[in-house]
Amino acid sequence: MTNPQVLILIGSDSDLPVMEEAEKVLKEFGVACEMRISSAHRTPKLTAALTAGAADRGIKVIIAGAGMAAHLAGVVAAETTLPVIGVPTGGGALNGVDALYAMVQMPGGVPVATMAIGKAGAKNAGIFAVQLLALSDSGLAGKLVAYRERMAAEVIARDEKLQTERAS
Amino acid sequence: MTNPQVLILIGSDSDLPVMEEAEKVLKEFGVACEMRISSAHRTPKLTAALTAGAADRGIKVIIAGAGMAAHLAGVVAAETTLPVIGVPTGGGALNGVDALYAMVQMPGGVPVATMAIGKAGAKNAGIFAVQLLALSDSGLAGKLVAYRERMAAEVIARDEKLQTERAS
Amino acid sequence: MTNPQVLILIGSDSDLPVMEEAEKVLKEFGVACEMRISSAHRTPKLTAALTAGAADRGIKVIIAGAGMAAHLAGVVAAETTLPVIGVPTGGGALNGVDALYAMVQMPGGVPVATMAIGKAGAKNAGIFAVQLLALSDSGLAGKLVAYRERMAAEVIARDEKLQTERAS
Amino acid sequence: MTNPQVLILIGSDSDLPVMEEAEKVLKEFGVACEMRISSAHRTPKLTAALTAGAADRGIKVIIAGAGMAAHLAGVVAAETTLPVIGVPTGGGALNGVDALYAMVQMPGGVPVATMAIGKAGAKNAGIFAVQLLALSDSGLAGKLVAYRERMAAEVIARDEKLQTERAS
Amino acid sequence: MTNPQVLILIGSDSDLPVMEEAEKVLKEFGVACEMRISSAHRTPKLTAALTAGAADRGIKVIIAGAGMAAHLAGVVAAETTLPVIGVPTGGGALNGVDALYAMVQMPGGVPVATMAIGKAGAKNAGIFAVQLLALSDSGLAGKLVAYRERMAAEVIARDEKLQTERAS
Amino acid sequence: MTNPQVLILIGSDSDLPVMEEAEKVLKEFGVACEMRISSAHRTPKLTAALTAGAADRGIKVIIAGAGMAAHLAGVVAAETTLPVIGVPTGGGALNGVDALYAMVQMPGGVPVATMAIGKAGAKNAGIFAVQLLALSDSGLAGKLVAYRERMAAEVIARDEKLQTERAS
Amino acid sequence: MTNPQVLILIGSDSDLPVMEEAEKVLKEFGVACEMRISSAHRTPKLTAALTAGAADRGIKVIIAGAGMAAHLAGVVAAETTLPVIGVPTGGGALNGVDALYAMVQMPGGVPVATMAIGKAGAKNAGIFAVQLLALSDSGLAGKLVAYRERMAAEVIARDEKLQTERAS
Amino acid sequence: MTNPQVLILIGSDSDLPVMEEAEKVLKEFGVACEMRISSAHRTPKLTAALTAGAADRGIKVIIAGAGMAAHLAGVVAAETTLPVIGVPTGGGALNGVDALYAMVQMPGGVPVATMAIGKAGAKNAGIFAVQLLALSDSGLAGKLVAYRERMAAEVIARDEKLQTERAS
Repeated sequence: MTNPQVLILIGSDSDLPVMEEAEKVLKEFGVACEMRISSAHRTPKLTAALTAGAADRGIKVIIAGAGMAAHLAGVVAAETTLPVIGVPTGGGALNGVDALYAMVQMPGGVPVATMAIGKAGAKNAGIFAVQLLALSDSGLAGKLVAYRERMAAEVIARDEKLQTERAS
Repeated sequence: MTNPQVLILIGSDSDLPVMEEAEKVLKEFGVACEMRISSAHRTPKLTAALTAGAADRGIKVIIAGAGMAAHLAGVVAAETTLPVIGVPTGGGALNGVDALYAMVQMPGGVPVATMAIGKAGAKNAGIFAVQLLALSDSGLAGKLVAYRERMAAEVIARDEKLQTERAS
Repeated sequence: MTNPQVLILIGSDSDLPVMEEAEKVLKEFGVACEMRISSAHRTPKLTAALTAGAADRGIKVIIAGAGMAAHLAGVVAAETTLPVIGVPTGGGALNGVDALYAMVQMPGGVPVATMAIGKAGAKNAGIFAVQLLALSDSGLAGKLVAYRERMAAEVIARDEKLQTERAS
Repeated sequence: MTNPQVLILIGSDSDLPVMEEAEKVLKEFGVACEMRISSAHRTPKLTAALTAGAADRGIKVIIAGAGMAAHLAGVVAAETTLPVIGVPTGGGALNGVDALYAMVQMPGGVPVATMAIGKAGAKNAGIFAVQLLALSDSGLAGKLVAYRERMAAEVIARDEKLQTERAS
Repeated sequence: MTNPQVLILIGSDSDLPVMEEAEKVLKEFGVACEMRISSAHRTPKLTAALTAGAADRGIKVIIAGAGMAAHLAGVVAAETTLPVIGVPTGGGALNGVDALYAMVQMPGGVPVATMAIGKAGAKNAGIFAVQLLALSDSGLAGKLVAYRERMAAEVIARDEKLQTERAS
Repeated sequence: MTNPQVLILIGSDSDLPVMEEAEKVLKEFGVACEMRISSAHRTPKLTAALTAGAADRGIKVIIAGAGMAAHLAGVVAAETTLPVIGVPTGGGALNGVDALYAMVQMPGGVPVATMAIGKAGAKNAGIFAVQLLALSDSGLAGKLVAYRERMAAEVIARDEKLQTERAS
Repeated sequence: MTNPQVLILIGSDSDLPVMEEAEKVLKEFGVACEMRISSAHRTPKLTAALTAGAADRGIKVIIAGAGMAAHLAGVVAAETTLPVIGVPTGGGALNGVDALYAMVQMPGGVPVATMAIGKAGAKNAGIFAVQLLALSDSGLAGKLVAYRERMAAEVIARDEKLQTERAS
Repeated sequence: MTNPQVLILIGSDSDLPVMEEAEKVLKEFGVACEMRISSAHRTPKLTAALTAGAADRGIKVIIAGAGMAAHLAGVVAAETTLPVIGVPTGGGALNGVDALYAMVQMPGGVPVATMAIGKAGAKNAGIFAVQLLALSDSGLAGKLVAYRERMAAEVIARDEKLQTERAS
């Protein structure tokens, strides 16, 4: 079995339905990943251990998804120099604005690459992880180009379908 | 020298002018405190060490002040069962709304008692710390009552001054 | 029957489903509490009486939950020097942002320790009350440590379950 | 000396520069008013006394100006059935949005008639008070019509001045 | 049949379910009112005519309810010197924050007394109208006191019911 | 002298410094315009008259600039079927978000074409007015293309200057 | 078959149900339009081609509807000097505030005429397009006047229905 | 001279003071970069050309900084599969919230890794670019570890200085 290159961390299994979008994309690109549950607040030591040891296990990118006062991505970024991608998973009274601000507004020195709130953000976290890995993997780079072409083709197909409907 | 009962933590000395309001109140009440600089993101291990060892050094309350994606209070709260009071220090493009959301929206299990953004919040963090300590210190309880009476007297004095001005 | 140490105040029984999260936590820790309905605006005298007499009845902490222009916690804090914890109960057109601002932005001198909007905040209000009482009750302090360990164990168990699912 | 018909309450003299706009309008209309400083949180009993006794002293309308978690108007409205007009005085980290929400979002049963944030709101509070009094004072009603005509004339004069400038 | 003293204006019948709360309160107090549909944007002339003629028909207070870019209250206030109460009816993508800002932020000179977003605001608009009329109608003033007592009694009854439930 | 094709309306001369950006652009394109001061709230009849008579005077587009609860554009749009462009002029406690919401959130049936808050929006209002007029004026259409090319050339010149600076 | 005068562009068919409101209005006015799907991000070249060629195909106005970080209208506006109308289609975690800001806050030089979030905005985009075309099409101008009269008549009919209901 | 590995794109030289923070960090790490001015709206073709040709010139990461309706990062991301980092440069009436939403809320398929608003975000964009390059450059990886240690040492030095001041 291939060693995972991407670690997806979530603080609670309530974030799983959102963050599976990232996992799905990574699988689609054939990038091995592992999804782990570890909370910034409830299991800080486990989170630090998972993060600090990540590079040695071959992890190249960490994706952290969390909601509300979402500290997970920042806490992870503090423990590693690997790139950390943050996904505000949304929900709650503030619909994810809290999580967005708590992730994106990192002070100078410790960046978190923040994606959109919710499933679109999780999907893009997966794609962005692939883009990072593709910098030194021409196979992945080629797959990204193909992925873009497929997306474009889908848009064009939908437009054609619409034109047909409107013409009839 | 008395052991400090309150630890005030700030992530950067740019938060000092705001958080000195808490220090000032504590001194006014004769409560020994220490102000330490340690960042959630830049010195996570020092922060964890300061926090985890706090109870043993006689600390009873921790006040954490931070701005932007303010994780300090939450990170501290994850490492101790002492009460943690958070102050969003404000400033930056979002004027402290980011810090407020990143502090107050803690998920269930690990509370941060959040105060107002900026100096009013820092002052109230100091008073709230005194209120906690006063639960088992009748001297402090008495000082709190006197403090309230002094505040009321000041309001009344200002009102009297205003009435005199308006009457003349 | 034990005297209550924590008074939970709500302005209307529509806040009950949210604030029962605080009650539940307190029961779990064996802390006697009473839940009272009294409004800042509809029964101001009763609210003042309940608050002013609280310390004499042995109350050590007051938790106030309210929505919209949530004045209850501030009004209570004005009548006592006991620590007051506020919970913006959420709901309404503004989803609790109104209640959050109306609670957390207290002016200097009269603090309200504000928790997250809704059920997570109510639960944390209960835990924070226990943390305050634990300052002079080593039994409670021990229970808090155990509670944290239980939370951590649950996270780890969920992670293990996830790993098993992903491996199969 | 005429008995005041309007009571202007402010919680702190820092609100004075804003609320003097209301006083100025009332003087312009020849409506006697008194400006009092009394805080919802620092002098709750004085605030309640001033409010509860207002009707008996001949007060017909109360204007309350406050900033941050502005409870003053709501606390006053809870103690009287006289109309209460609220002015979020603005300032602070949230520029008065906190005060606006804390005033306008009153729960059903106890209304606060809320004006704009800051000086425009204070001025309008004065005018609105005159509009209420004018319901049973035809002299005031006439002055209001004249005031509107003066405002319109000023706009027209400015437009004429602008046309002259643009034409030259 | 009594002449209406209060005119309730709505821009569209979609605002009816919200604004009936105002109508209900006025009926409860025995204050005759009329509910009219007239839009600031779709029937500006009718709106101006209804407003300008209101005082002559015996109307003393106008309540205007509208959503989105809610101009109705301001447009009405521009045509009369009667007191105008605004209710942001809520709904839409911005949940009534747009309507709140479009009502409450009136420039100096033409006030709109703004209530909370939605049904609570509509109810309070009705009560506030009664408070205005009660300034020169001692019967209404007495009914307001009784209304407040009834509200207080309901809160107390709910509290007693809760105590009984908790005790059993 | 040419008849104006564009009417720029402002509610107060405090909006003049912002709205002169629109005037400047129109002059640059040789489009005759007139700037008039007339308030939605203080001179509603003048505003209606200016608007209703606009088409007959040869006006083809109306630009309305206003701040706070900015009703001017909507009130104008209600009186004409000419295209109305709105500019939230900004300023005040809410920095123009109030004016933006009060302009852009027009209900179905009466559109206001809303531009950015402040000077950028005023400038774009002018350009957009030119774009409308260019639909039936090929001279203007040509000028727009030239304007775009000039803008592009300026960006390129700045980039070249920067490259030279960085290279030296 | 008539050449379309209005091009409606959407980035994804999920925006179709909203943007059909624009199409419906245009059909009602007898204005030929075409609805095309082309994304700013997924098919940038197709979007540029559709836009750049629009004027030559007889298109006079472009309506672009998009959600989230809605770049479509701005990207289109960069490629043409035809008037571009933007509709923030709403939905997502931020309910369309993101799309509104991403459309309306265009920098000086390249305007996007922004409508309300969601269906009301789409409908108004259609009406605004008709208003532009009516500048050089007196038939359309007459239809607009009739449309307004129909809208007014509907409001009046609803008011009459309400008066009848209330009277019975 | 070394080929640049990082392309920093800004839409206007007003963004230069903010984005120089990114340039500064890259220089500090010895990573060759080029700063180019090209606008999404004013020079769309140049922007597309710079982006599409970037990979061939050896560029591995693109950083795009923009304010207001900040489309630059998204437009760039649509033209390349290289990782794109976005910096909302802030300023304007909305203080950068508009730019933040217009960058971070990218729809699924085309990610933009968004940093904090303003200078802190620009600095972090530089660091994040280094983190990406360090995935295949162990020299850079070592420098990142040293950078973190230096940051930690600075925090500790400031804390020691504070302790000395407080002790004296």
